[in-house]
Order: sequence, then structure tokens, then C-alpha cells
Amino acid sequence: MIILTGKDLEEVLKPEIAVNAVREAFSLFSSGKVIQPQRQVITIKGNWWGIMPSFTDFSFSTKIVNVIPKNKEKGLPSVQGVVILMSPDTGETLAILEGSILTAIRTASASVLSTELALRSRHIDTLGIIGAGMEAKYHLKITLKFFSVSRVLISARKSHYELAKEYGGEAVELEKLLKESQVIYATTSSDKPVVLGKLLSNDFHVSSIGAHTPTAREIDDDTIMKSKTYFVDSLEAVSNETGDFIEPKRKGIMPQVYEIGEIINKNIKIQRPSIFKTVGIAAQDNITAYIAYEEALKRGIGIKI
Amino acid sequence: MIILTGKDLEEVLKPEIAVNAVREAFSLFSSGKVIQPQRQVITIKGNWWGIMPSFTDFSFSTKIVNVIPKNKEKGLPSVQGVVILMSPDTGETLAILEGSILTAIRTASASVLSTELALRSRHIDTLGIIGAGMEAKYHLKITLKFFSVSRVLISARKSHYELAKEYGGEAVELEKLLKESQVIYATTSSDKPVVLGKLLSNDFHVSSIGAHTPTAREIDDDTIMKSKTYFVDSLEAVSNETGDFIEPKRKGIMPQVYEIGEIINKNIKIQRPSIFKTVGIAAQDNITAYIAYEEALKRGIGIKI
Repeated sequence: MIILTGKDLEEVLKPEIAVNAVREAFSLFSSGKVIQPQRQVITIKGNWWGIMPSFTDFSFSTKIVNVIPKNKEKGLPSVQGVVILMSPDTGETLAILEGSILTAIRTASASVLSTELALRSRHIDTLGIIGAGMEAKYHLKITLKFFSVSRVLISARKSHYELAKEYGGEAVELEKLLKESQVIYATTSSDKPVVLGKLLSNDFHVSSIGAHTPTAREIDDDTIMKSKTYFVDSLEAVSNETGDFIEPKRKGIMPQVYEIGEIINKNIKIQRPSIFKTVGIAAQDNITAYIAYEEALKRGIGIKI
Repeated sequence: MIILTGKDLEEVLKPEIAVNAVREAFSLFSSGKVIQPQRQVITIKGNWWGIMPSFTDFSFSTKIVNVIPKNKEKGLPSVQGVVILMSPDTGETLAILEGSILTAIRTASASVLSTELALRSRHIDTLGIIGAGMEAKYHLKITLKFFSVSRVLISARKSHYELAKEYGGEAVELEKLLKESQVIYATTSSDKPVVLGKLLSNDFHVSSIGAHTPTAREIDDDTIMKSKTYFVDSLEAVSNETGDFIEPKRKGIMPQVYEIGEIINKNIKIQRPSIFKTVGIAAQDNITAYIAYEEALKRGIGIKI
């Protein structure tokens, strides 16, 4: 068994490897080769905890994750977790992986993958990041290594100046970001739209990772009506979990909808403007954890027990 | 976060500490202070996997455990698992503990505790162990340190000679064991009774840890009819999970029934002959893991990450 800390995960999950991991995850998921039993949600002291198992022919993972907003007051991360990787053949524990950095890496990698599929190129003219938290940071880290990016705009309620400075971007007003970005990553905890279609160009790709309740929105109806393709991590998950899918679907304003795994498996050419909506699925944790484990073994990274 | 291997667990969970841990677990459980959300059962490649969460005001544990019978052919344990201990306040991972030795220790400790409650003494005249697997071994280890024991008899289909030699006992036929033992631990995987009441003395205590389906039996009806007290780890659990409780209950042949936590909390005096039936509950894993973690911190045992 090996233990992989957040630092180890950054070391083994190089952008190319992490993006390929989620590509494999989505491909297997849409082929029915990843089983995701119902996740268990538990409320403890008013906070949300989730236990998310997932298995394939070669890997069994369980992510235990929590959201504890008051942690911020103590200087602790508000989202913490752990991923346990076991062998579905022998039942042995293969690896224990820090959960919040694994989540941030696999989430950012999904946005990056969606962008590669939408652009069919490794170059982004202007990248706009909305939000300046942990997710925004990992989106920047991975995108800047995976793509050549001419210009980075960052907009958030706070901390965007620091983030812009660290990654060589410009801290800007949201309106400017929306008007000038080719690729937009929405990584907010807002429940009102931050991606406003009326400000967007006519050739955008948006990846939206927020809005985690059936009534929360991160992208508005104008954005959806302006787009030609709307693709998602899991049709079942987005149909249950996000207003960004549930509401426009109900209103009948959806463009062509796909699962990203279907796009990969059938080599479908995405029509832009495009939206990728991801709520995150256990298959991503599973395959990313498994590939991190394999890489770590190969490179002698992590603590062996 | 600390990692506790099986060896570390043996080091920190000295018999006195382990027995007190399960005493605390049962006491809290019967007072409603341990919440055990529904465990999730998953079948992977035909094998049984369980995910068992449990939380108290101070600890959140999840045990992931599997039963893979074919592992024996590969020289691997057929039951493997891991316990993840987290803080219900901050959500941090506190400890990762090897699961099968933790389970063997907490199960044996429950039998030992039941014996102390039934005998109200630290001396056993003749101890009879049925079975010679991992559970039998940990029952022996802990009992021989917790009690003074005049004589140990061991009976099993195989390996009882080796076990008897290792622990200074006598390998005997089942009939002799049943006739001559004051305290009997049934630790088999049999689904037919091995504890036969017609052979027992008139002042026995039996702890039975096997028979894990609604039709499986480890103790027969004669044993139950001969006993004055039948106590269990969890009334809900035994009512769902073991023929040893379900069948005699249906037949109306039960003596006085208690939860062990109730006996502890109300200081109830057990009338012998007595039976303790345990299928194992998540509260035991939780509290035993938490106390192992506290002891390990105090004594500097385990790998700190």
C-alpha cells in the first residue's frame, strides 16, 4: 500500500497524465465499464459528507469527502477528503490518496479535456477564469501547461489580483472577461449566473464546474441559447444535481446534448459555441486515483507501508 | 494523519484498552450516541464488499471490508479491509487503520467483555474455543491476557493442533470441549450449529461470533433453551442478520434478551447460563479505531504523514 499526499499527487499527475486519466474515465463511464453505486450522503453536525464508491474491472475506489464551511474561520480548507483505492480482485488496499487535491486536479483536467475537444487545438487565445479559489488555481496550473495561452483574464470577488500575479494574468472586471475570452472556466460557488450570454463572443467554449443544486445556476439561459453544443460528464448526474442543466432542459432551450465520454468514444466533432457542464463523477476519482497509483509505483513516489 | 498497520494495532490495542474500547462503543451505541447510517453492500466480481460508516460527537469512521474466498488459494487473507477515521468537526483525516486485524481485535474484545460481564470475575476455569482461524487466534490472545485461565480446549476441523501448541491448550474433540468448558467461544464459518446444548454443563457462558445469514446457525435450540440470558451487540443487527437470533425468536424459545450496552449502562446482573451473540457493529470499529488513534498519538506509534 502506498500513501500519496497532495504534494505527491501534484508530482505524479502531470497535466498530460491527468487529462488522459479523465479522458479514460469518461470513455469507460459512457461505455458502462465504470459502476458507480449510489453515493451515500450523511449530515454530521449540520455539514455535508459524501461517500462515493466506484469500480471497474481493475480498480475499486471510495472517496469520502466533506464540506465544512466554518473551517475557513479556522484557516482550514472547507472541502476535505480522502480516496481509498483497492483491488477488486484481491481486496487489498492499494493506495490512500489525499482527496481535495485529487478532486481539484481531476476537475480541472475535465475542463481542460473539454477545451481540447471543443477547440481541436493546443492553443487558447484568451482564457478567462471566473473565481479565484482552489479550483481556479488548479485550472490555471493545468491549462497553462497543457495549452499555449496568449492571454489570461481572471475575475472574482476577491483574491483575483494575487492569482493573476502568480500566473501572469490580468485581474479584470467580469464584463471584460466575458467579452474578450475565447475559453471561459466558471469555478465559482455562486448560485446566480456569472456567465452571461449577452456579453459573450460568437465562438466561445465554457466549462462550468459550479452550481451544485437543482436551482443553482452558473451559466444563464442566454449562454445556452447562444451555444450549439452542450456536453456533460454524466447525463444522470447533471439531470439530478444542477440547475444549469435541469432548468434549460425544462424550458426546452437546449442545443445538441452529449456525454463527453460519447464524444470521445464516437469521435464526435463538437460544434462551437460550446458548453461543458461538470458536477464531477466518481469515475474520475477512480481512474485518476488508479493512474496516480500506477505512476507513483513506477516512479517510486509516495510512502510505502 | 497517522497510518496504523496491523502490527501497530496489536501494539496499541492492549487487551485492557481494547476491551474498554468496545465497552465504551456498546455503551454509547445503546444510549443512541453512535449513529450508524445504513451500510452499503456492493457485489464486485461475485464477492461481498461492505462500506460501513459510523459517527459520534468526536469521531467519524468508515470501514471498507471485503470477503474474497478465493484469496485462500493465493495465500492471501479472505477478509481484508481498511478503516478511515476522520474528525466530525474539521473533516480532516485523522488515521488510516488496517481493517482485518482491527476487526479481529474488536470482535474478540466483545467476546471477552461479554465473559467478564457474565462471570463477574477475571478467572476462567476451562475455556473452549471452536474454530482455529484468525478470529480464534485473536480470541485466545486477548482472553489469555485479560483473564487467568486454568485450561484451554480447542476444537476445529483443522489447525487446532497448531493453535493449541502455540497457546498452551489442548486440541480436543468438539464433544469433550462442549462437556468440559465453562466459557465457550464459537468462531466458525459453519452454518449448522456447533454449540450443542445437550452436551453443555449447567453453568456456561457462550459467545458466538459466526452465523451471518438469517438461516445460518452456530448455536442450537437446546443451548438457547438451557440459557437464562441471551444478550447481543445490537438488537436491530441480530434481528436482521443471524439465524441464531431470528429462528429462536420466531419459535418463542428466547430467555431474557438484552443489548450488551444496556447491561453496561444499567449495571444489570447477568443470570447464567448465558449466551452473547455478536454480528459486529460499526460502533465497535469506530470507537476502537478512535482509541487506537489516541493511544498511537500518545505513544508515538504509527507513521505520521
